Amino acid sequence: WCQYEVKGEQRIERLYQFKDFKTALAFTNAVGELAEAESHHPALLTEWGKVTVTWWTHTVGGLHMNDLIMAAKTEEIFKQFK
Amino acid sequence: WCQYEVKGEQRIERLYQFKDFKTALAFTNAVGELAEAESHHPALLTEWGKVTVTWWTHTVGGLHMNDLIMAAKTEEIFKQFK
Repeated sequence: WCQYEVKGEQRIERLYQFKDFKTALAFTNAVGELAEAESHHPALLTEWGKVTVTWWTHTVGGLHMNDLIMAAKTEEIFKQFK
Repeated sequence: WCQYEVKGEQRIERLYQFKDFKTALAFTNAVGELAEAESHHPALLTEWGKVTVTWWTHTVGGLHMNDLIMAAKTEEIFKQFK
């Protein structure tokens, strides 16, 4: 994960790689399901063979402990795709 | 749709808005299904209530007629989500 700032807000981001578009989209859906379950939503950039996941919290103007927990849960989901 | 250049490659992009994350993700999946069917893949940025769709063609270093056709088909899919 790398951390960077957008308009004064801290975000964390990681690029995940997959064998094709279909698998990348399946990962996007799995992370989307987690997001819905936790009511906390990332930005998910799906491309051929890769997904960029970005977590941050609007209401606190940047990162919150919950973003780090969501990042850890995203890692767990990724393990199922390896 | 707006057109812009990334590293010398022309791309076309449009932002679509939805009522929530779930509907945005359903749209991402519908465009992903089209992409798989046509073997031509966009970048799909899914966020809460919005999806940014970007089409371009790597092999010709920018836009190809097919990207414009895919953009038109994306519009057709969006109509089903309104």
